[in-house]
Amino acid sequence: MNTTTTVPEGYRTLETGSLAGWLATLPAVRERLGGAPERWAVREVGDGNLNLVFRVDGPEGSVCVKQALPYLRVAGPSWPMTLERAYYEQRYYAAVAPHVGAAIPQVFHYDPARYAIVMENLTPHVILRRGLIAGHRYEHVGRDLGDYVARAGFFTSDLAEPFERKFDRIASFAGNTDLVRISVDLIFTDPYLEHPRNRHTRPQLDRDVAALRGDAEAKAAAAELGRRFLGETRALIHGDLHSGSIMVTDADTRVIDPEFAFYGPLGFDLGAFLGNLVLAWCAQPGLAAHPGEREAYRDWILAQAKAFWTAFHDRFLGLWREAGRGDAWPIAMFRGPGDESALEAARRRTLDALFADMLGYAACKMIRRVVGFAHVADLDGIADPALRARCERSALAIATHWLKRRQESRSIDEALAAVPALAAS
Amino acid sequence: MNTTTTVPEGYRTLETGSLAGWLATLPAVRERLGGAPERWAVREVGDGNLNLVFRVDGPEGSVCVKQALPYLRVAGPSWPMTLERAYYEQRYYAAVAPHVGAAIPQVFHYDPARYAIVMENLTPHVILRRGLIAGHRYEHVGRDLGDYVARAGFFTSDLAEPFERKFDRIASFAGNTDLVRISVDLIFTDPYLEHPRNRHTRPQLDRDVAALRGDAEAKAAAAELGRRFLGETRALIHGDLHSGSIMVTDADTRVIDPEFAFYGPLGFDLGAFLGNLVLAWCAQPGLAAHPGEREAYRDWILAQAKAFWTAFHDRFLGLWREAGRGDAWPIAMFRGPGDESALEAARRRTLDALFADMLGYAACKMIRRVVGFAHVADLDGIADPALRARCERSALAIATHWLKRRQESRSIDEALAAVPALAAS
Repeated sequence: MNTTTTVPEGYRTLETGSLAGWLATLPAVRERLGGAPERWAVREVGDGNLNLVFRVDGPEGSVCVKQALPYLRVAGPSWPMTLERAYYEQRYYAAVAPHVGAAIPQVFHYDPARYAIVMENLTPHVILRRGLIAGHRYEHVGRDLGDYVARAGFFTSDLAEPFERKFDRIASFAGNTDLVRISVDLIFTDPYLEHPRNRHTRPQLDRDVAALRGDAEAKAAAAELGRRFLGETRALIHGDLHSGSIMVTDADTRVIDPEFAFYGPLGFDLGAFLGNLVLAWCAQPGLAAHPGEREAYRDWILAQAKAFWTAFHDRFLGLWREAGRGDAWPIAMFRGPGDESALEAARRRTLDALFADMLGYAACKMIRRVVGFAHVADLDGIADPALRARCERSALAIATHWLKRRQESRSIDEALAAVPALAAS
Repeated sequence: MNTTTTVPEGYRTLETGSLAGWLATLPAVRERLGGAPERWAVREVGDGNLNLVFRVDGPEGSVCVKQALPYLRVAGPSWPMTLERAYYEQRYYAAVAPHVGAAIPQVFHYDPARYAIVMENLTPHVILRRGLIAGHRYEHVGRDLGDYVARAGFFTSDLAEPFERKFDRIASFAGNTDLVRISVDLIFTDPYLEHPRNRHTRPQLDRDVAALRGDAEAKAAAAELGRRFLGETRALIHGDLHSGSIMVTDADTRVIDPEFAFYGPLGFDLGAFLGNLVLAWCAQPGLAAHPGEREAYRDWILAQAKAFWTAFHDRFLGLWREAGRGDAWPIAMFRGPGDESALEAARRRTLDALFADMLGYAACKMIRRVVGFAHVADLDGIADPALRARCERSALAIATHWLKRRQESRSIDEALAAVPALAAS
């Protein structure tokens, strides 16, 4: 990473003992918690690697306080992390809030000097990734996420609004380069070359990793997707929409942690979620208490992947038909006989292109989690290296196929039906 | 136009009598002009519709002063124009100056309060469009422009540099919305519907224009190119690179008037120049003193179109091979056996896509000049409406074909060889 961070004068990490005193000065927070500040219970609940996270309970309600830390502790002191990511996180929330309803936490306050966001405490929600590892079924999660990506993507694009508003937001988020740099390096570059930050299950995957790094066609596909990641300002994207950025209950789905947000290709968010579902699918044999235990659960995961794309597709198409009043595809040009069918054909071509992008970006996200710097708990939690390597190899096989053949699948059914055979290849 | 302009306090239009007094306070300008300010000769030389332009001659040299006016006089007082365009113009010059050498005028000073640029006075240069109308041959113009677009485009893209620098410039130019709005409305929207701003040669072209506005496939193609115009931040583009934005002598070619600059698809600049060359080709029968007089000159125009694309292609490819050290297509990923040929194939695909974009954007630029608000002198100068309509009809025929079939031509020779037959169709 080339990031450098200057910690501004006046920045102090928040502390359990003094947090209530500050929160008491914020009327909206005070109202939410209720009662006297002395009665508020403050606990630090984050893992402390990237952010400080506090849960504050009052007599009438609770809030969550998330403060950015100026470094990434897991990577050692040589990896500073800009505090400004807190600014971009709350800006993302503010930009999508009018369009996605309660699918994001409610933000009560942002403090630019503390780089701290005071927001809704999500309870009894759990991180989706943990649920997928535990084999729990959240029946609405695929549909909810598809709906979410469609709404957030459509309404921040110039399909929905004058391009001037999009350009204004492009400029606002163009400064989020420290976080985008992480994606550029860790997703689109490092996994495809020898780099000291990379790791993989050794020696079992040595040959697979060497094959990937020698696969010019796969690398060209990843580089093309990476180039488009940096050069297509289609919509405000979350930028890190994996199963660790989603909190769920059986009835509710919430999207959190949008600090990687910027204007990019919408397929990147689609691919992030799909890729992490498929990683969970690949991990299941390693998580099963006995062989076959998770087979039905695996089918459920793929059904969620289908529900995700289907919900996205239907919602995005519906919104475009009903609310497509932006500068992209100006509706005023298409009011004659035959125009509606041409416009509808264009909508379908756009969705076909998004589908191919989803497969491609899903592949990039899967590959980086097996051969790159940051892995996922789904796979890393498999203690037996031989078993883990078999799961990881199946992920690489699916991903490499999607990377190179992303234009060829024309339906979600066809793409998902091929997954078991690809995994076994 | 929805633009509104607030003229800032302190803005005054420059005047011939007081200009030298201000210029005398600028050391670089004083040095260039030489002698005492009282000896400087100041003349207003612009047409006054959009900008005030002064030529100032001193004993040792001359400068040009261009000041933005807050309205577009030709369109009436209802069409205000932001003064900020002067800011974007000089920013564009500053961004490309290190890469394009003397292909732009040297800028000596920018005054943000006066919205005025003091720059090199280009003499004895003439506007290329006037030269094309007069039937003059500038043997280097196609090659020079191709080289220019390649350099300006490559070096401001993330093929050449870290994406952080590109994002920084994207943000700088994202505020140039008043000018981009003009392009969105006048190029990509209005020509394809009934709008009081539009005009065409009546009644001769009535049926042609109705056919265009009823051609759903052509409109879908224009809208797709318009969507990409607003959503692809590939390179810093000039944004208005027609033959009126180019000044020439027999030996020199200069690019001026980049106030429409922003981050967009490079094919837009390619198409602007190609489209205006082909408009000049279409106009020649109407400009000939006697039938056939301009036939050889028409061939020369198409030869310049070929030289333009060829120079662009070769220079862009060469720069990418030699200086492709940016975040797009990271060179570090492609150092194994077979990698260079995969990368070279990707380069060729990129150039093929740029070629198709060039034809598509050329088509959009040609159509708007025949059926939209602002026409070109090449065609408007043909007094006989029947003759003018024949020339304009040939432009519409070529453009409509390119708009719908832009993916099908695979070489510049093939595309240009088809021009005469398309014109006659």
